[in-house]
Amino acid sequence: MFSMPEFTVNQSEGSLPERINPVQKPVLVVQKYGGTSVGNVDKIKRVAKRVTSEIDEGHRVVVVVSAMGDRTDELVAMAHQINVHPPSREMDVLLSTGEQVSIALLAMAIQRLGYDVISLTGAQSGIHTSDVHKKARIEGIDTTRVERELKHGRIVIVAGFQGVDEAGEITTLGRGGSDTSAVALAAALSADKCEIYTDVDGVFNADPRIVPKAKKLDYVSYQEVLEMASLGAGVLHPRSVELAEKYNLPLVVRSSYNDRKGTLIKNFKTGSNDLKEDIYMEKVLVRGIALDENIAKISILEVPDKPGIAFRLFSALAKENIHVDMIVQNVNRTAVNDISFTVNVDELQEAVAVSQKFSFEVGAQKVEFDQGVAKLSVVGTGIVANAEIASKFFEALFEMGINILTISTSEIKISCLIDKARAKDAMVHIHEKFEL
Amino acid sequence: MFSMPEFTVNQSEGSLPERINPVQKPVLVVQKYGGTSVGNVDKIKRVAKRVTSEIDEGHRVVVVVSAMGDRTDELVAMAHQINVHPPSREMDVLLSTGEQVSIALLAMAIQRLGYDVISLTGAQSGIHTSDVHKKARIEGIDTTRVERELKHGRIVIVAGFQGVDEAGEITTLGRGGSDTSAVALAAALSADKCEIYTDVDGVFNADPRIVPKAKKLDYVSYQEVLEMASLGAGVLHPRSVELAEKYNLPLVVRSSYNDRKGTLIKNFKTGSNDLKEDIYMEKVLVRGIALDENIAKISILEVPDKPGIAFRLFSALAKENIHVDMIVQNVNRTAVNDISFTVNVDELQEAVAVSQKFSFEVGAQKVEFDQGVAKLSVVGTGIVANAEIASKFFEALFEMGINILTISTSEIKISCLIDKARAKDAMVHIHEKFEL
Repeated sequence: MFSMPEFTVNQSEGSLPERINPVQKPVLVVQKYGGTSVGNVDKIKRVAKRVTSEIDEGHRVVVVVSAMGDRTDELVAMAHQINVHPPSREMDVLLSTGEQVSIALLAMAIQRLGYDVISLTGAQSGIHTSDVHKKARIEGIDTTRVERELKHGRIVIVAGFQGVDEAGEITTLGRGGSDTSAVALAAALSADKCEIYTDVDGVFNADPRIVPKAKKLDYVSYQEVLEMASLGAGVLHPRSVELAEKYNLPLVVRSSYNDRKGTLIKNFKTGSNDLKEDIYMEKVLVRGIALDENIAKISILEVPDKPGIAFRLFSALAKENIHVDMIVQNVNRTAVNDISFTVNVDELQEAVAVSQKFSFEVGAQKVEFDQGVAKLSVVGTGIVANAEIASKFFEALFEMGINILTISTSEIKISCLIDKARAKDAMVHIHEKFEL
Repeated sequence: MFSMPEFTVNQSEGSLPERINPVQKPVLVVQKYGGTSVGNVDKIKRVAKRVTSEIDEGHRVVVVVSAMGDRTDELVAMAHQINVHPPSREMDVLLSTGEQVSIALLAMAIQRLGYDVISLTGAQSGIHTSDVHKKARIEGIDTTRVERELKHGRIVIVAGFQGVDEAGEITTLGRGGSDTSAVALAAALSADKCEIYTDVDGVFNADPRIVPKAKKLDYVSYQEVLEMASLGAGVLHPRSVELAEKYNLPLVVRSSYNDRKGTLIKNFKTGSNDLKEDIYMEKVLVRGIALDENIAKISILEVPDKPGIAFRLFSALAKENIHVDMIVQNVNRTAVNDISFTVNVDELQEAVAVSQKFSFEVGAQKVEFDQGVAKLSVVGTGIVANAEIASKFFEALFEMGINILTISTSEIKISCLIDKARAKDAMVHIHEKFEL
């Protein structure tokens, strides 16, 4: 058993992950199917065929599934008709039923094809989490049961998105939960790869619904996809990518509707022998453009400039499990700051409440928020070190007469907060400007 | 902790049931709401009000709920679209989600009204069952968790119809499951009474949908309602009534749509001081007429007349958990028997398969079955000892020109197997003949 920040693995076989297989060892694959892939009876039957084809090739398979199509939304709607602020614990009891229905139906579909199969809830799969309902983090996975079932030659179907806390309460993992379940299970089982099946062909260099000329990437590094994901590119939640990187687990994103290869996500190091790594050797590349329209900006104006002020605000937000992004602090005049940051719109109400309490306590002037913003980003390894890319990005926005509200950069991305109304056009223009 | 044939109670307080309350002790009520009572969001809100009104009166409440309206049927339909013979284990994983949705939504509705409440799945409620999926029997209830929540002043909402076996697998209790959950919990918690809420006003002396003049009974004994239930009167499943009788737990059947008193089911002993017991003192009464159209008759013809033959057949049927009723054995000629019995139509296919295997093994001539039969019964304490009632019953059938296929009697009922097509008319005629 070894322990890691996001979770602990309780491996019954006690060995460390070992992914270079001896020639004869069967491959262990963890597959994850999202809600659209199991949206109705026919789709579930199709997934069953895909799963069993892996078995026919001599592999062992663990399948993680989400709730069917819109079931989660239906359940949330019912809950809100009953109680505008339903208790989080009861929401988890409610929502976890969605995945439980999926695992049972998929197991039935696979059994029908003549294969040995068993479905397991999050708790039965040994997925232990923190006790923060609706936003639980995986703390450990006891793989004993899953490994026993695999040893008996069974296909194991696991309910994604859910786990159990120390007190035996049902928890859910929050956004990106099923992907995280799949990656964590794959890491804990030392799987050879983790395949994320979805309704698109892979990771694109821009959202194809907005940029018709967007191209699918065959290969992408964890870091690049991580930036794209956290910037709203949507295919994968950053949590699951971070976890895959931590365990150096190859991830494949592909469509459940066709047999195209999808996008392979792993570490591509310059000078290594990795296939295709040469794509990274010659020059800095803009690998993708990401747009996040699901954010809002909060500003706290005229905060007294004292040490520990920022710490107090952001620790109060962290305590409420509010994810904060793009923090900017501008000193306007003597001894007074303006602090701005962005949050997910879902968490705006809570974040404003925390900010207002903070504002009152420290004697700031007032709290403002703006839902009319979007975050547009260019992503690529080494991008920030290359001034040309940043200037080209800003130039493109200038050409369109778009004002930049906030700039934020990392090693491999540059993000600008701009007017939401112009964001999609800007994305198309930049895609062309960088000739992606 | 004490043990009983249907289940074992693990009581944290260790005392035997004690139902005569000292004046000040708050009453503990177990309420059960069926699927129609929680069929939609508005109905769930109505149930929440009914539950909290008990709290306002100073009582403690444990609520057992079924799946919403047609949800179980929807889930079964999906399963059958995927797999004509879905594995029983996976059916339990699937169906148990129905009650889990109900408990979460009802808890949200009650919390909304400002009361402290918690929902518990079958497993969380400590309902331990046998491992026979789809037909599990309650083996024990560990009330520790439920009692802890009650002690914290919470209303406890329990998922009916489900439990957990020794291996941690989800099980369901089969027909009448939620009623059984409620009665077993009430017994284990030494509750003062168990109220079964449904869509009718109580137990009637005949099915009001068939006999418009049918009357609601204010009081009825366990034995009478047991016969009526097992004869198809439908309001309560015999399992739950048997269990209530075993623990001498007063049961109330009433409507969740109005405040009428419903039917009280308990032991009414001649000569006791029970209210209204005098209704039983003077004469034998036909208390009700029951009709079961959901049965089929199986006959095994020309079975060699050897010792142990009946034992072999019925133990084979019991092993498959097939419930057998109205066994008749007619010796037709030397050394050869015809054996007939009835089963529930849902179990006909399985029962015929077992019978055919038996028939082949013992060298019987053939197996026949008939789905065109119905069982019509008159019920009342002491009925069989009163020849007048039996003859009146048979006379009524004769008046209508209806042939009696099989007769079966017990202390308190007389049942006839007749042509299903004539059964409803016969029921109306008998209701009039006995002036009910």
